[in-house]
Amino acid sequence: MATHLTKLALIVEYDGTAYRGFQAQANGPTVQCELERAIHALTGETLRVTCASRTDAGVHATGQVVSFRTGSNHGPGTFRRALSHHLPEDIVVREAHIVPSGFHVQRDATGREYQYLVLNRETPSPLLRNRAHRIARPLDVERMNGAAATLLGERDFTPFAGAWAPSERSGVKTLTRAKWSREGDLVRFEIAGNAFLYQQVRRIVGALLEVGTGKSRLKGFSALANGDKRSAGPVAPPHGLYLTKVAYNEWPPRLD
Amino acid sequence: MATHLTKLALIVEYDGTAYRGFQAQANGPTVQCELERAIHALTGETLRVTCASRTDAGVHATGQVVSFRTGSNHGPGTFRRALSHHLPEDIVVREAHIVPSGFHVQRDATGREYQYLVLNRETPSPLLRNRAHRIARPLDVERMNGAAATLLGERDFTPFAGAWAPSERSGVKTLTRAKWSREGDLVRFEIAGNAFLYQQVRRIVGALLEVGTGKSRLKGFSALANGDKRSAGPVAPPHGLYLTKVAYNEWPPRLD
Repeated sequence: MATHLTKLALIVEYDGTAYRGFQAQANGPTVQCELERAIHALTGETLRVTCASRTDAGVHATGQVVSFRTGSNHGPGTFRRALSHHLPEDIVVREAHIVPSGFHVQRDATGREYQYLVLNRETPSPLLRNRAHRIARPLDVERMNGAAATLLGERDFTPFAGAWAPSERSGVKTLTRAKWSREGDLVRFEIAGNAFLYQQVRRIVGALLEVGTGKSRLKGFSALANGDKRSAGPVAPPHGLYLTKVAYNEWPPRLD
Repeated sequence: MATHLTKLALIVEYDGTAYRGFQAQANGPTVQCELERAIHALTGETLRVTCASRTDAGVHATGQVVSFRTGSNHGPGTFRRALSHHLPEDIVVREAHIVPSGFHVQRDATGREYQYLVLNRETPSPLLRNRAHRIARPLDVERMNGAAATLLGERDFTPFAGAWAPSERSGVKTLTRAKWSREGDLVRFEIAGNAFLYQQVRRIVGALLEVGTGKSRLKGFSALANGDKRSAGPVAPPHGLYLTKVAYNEWPPRLD
């Protein structure tokens, strides 16, 4: 290996439909594997990339952040163009930057932003079939916003982590934004916070959609949010979810 | 064949990516073939469907209108649900209605509406790769609207019909709307008129995009629009185009 390694960070956009999620695993294609394969095609190096947020199978990203160390002398512009060339058309590198060797894509992130798209109409949409979760029953966006607002600020989100919540990790996170809006039959949820537990966004969406269809009341939502295990909520499907941004104190991180 | 035939009209939405266009042809799958196959699966009938607007390969539709005569006694609600069940997931029947036997889906249409989506940014988008045409150079939406406005009203659109313009058909059509708008890096064109020549929308879009990037001036656009053959413009690619609505005096058409 080369002794002088450069650390690069990329902003990556992908259509998650064809992937078993971001992270490399035994069965099926992942975004990580495709990125590592493209880096190998460009530099000849076999290396691992690290991501800011491990998206699940079927989840999309417009602002995933990924980093890796390379011995290659290619500039960031070459990395951006050449990796996109070697990647399948459902993954694109939007930005590439040289970052300080101490920069950690996950630990240094100060916030994450997601969107969740719901198509609120009776018939499915061929054009949005892998892009939005369809709900036939009319959604009351105002009621969903009322329930969503109760989650803002710092609180223990363990009730929205399901059975997979790592017991050793604190569930206390800060939610800074949780807002629904409607444009015709498209209903969009924007959610932002410092960090999120595994499947937390999809569980919050699932619970809020039940409030929106009238299947559950605000009282039931509060009971769930406050840890009443009897009200364990549903997980909204992955194909409506988008990782839109990972925030850092400074982007691109300043080189010393 | 049954002696009592019922005429049905459907509103159909499709993702045109996988199809060689609407109309049945020798090579490759078409939306028409899929619809006729689904009708056969439901009713056992082998028949032809007629559409309001023959979309090209790769062009999408949210409001295509299709009609056919059937000897089946199924109600329109059953047709809507059962056809969508038999269709691939990139084609969906949004509405089904019994219409008068004299109703003609193409001849009776009083207007057509299309949208064209442009992604105006440097890097391609995996999520919009079959949904929007990407233009890297900044588009001047105001200039494009200035040029588009000169096309409004009744005029001869033959210059936008290319070499395939049927000589026996009049090129005189009325354009009622031609308006660009921008939302972030997504630039949308809405165009409506009583009828359109073959590839007219894509040729108008192609010419307006050249105005928007500064590749051609308003003067050149006017020369093209007024039939200067030397300025024959480009055809915008199909995957940004959507047939959004076919208008009738009355929808659904009243049964006598």
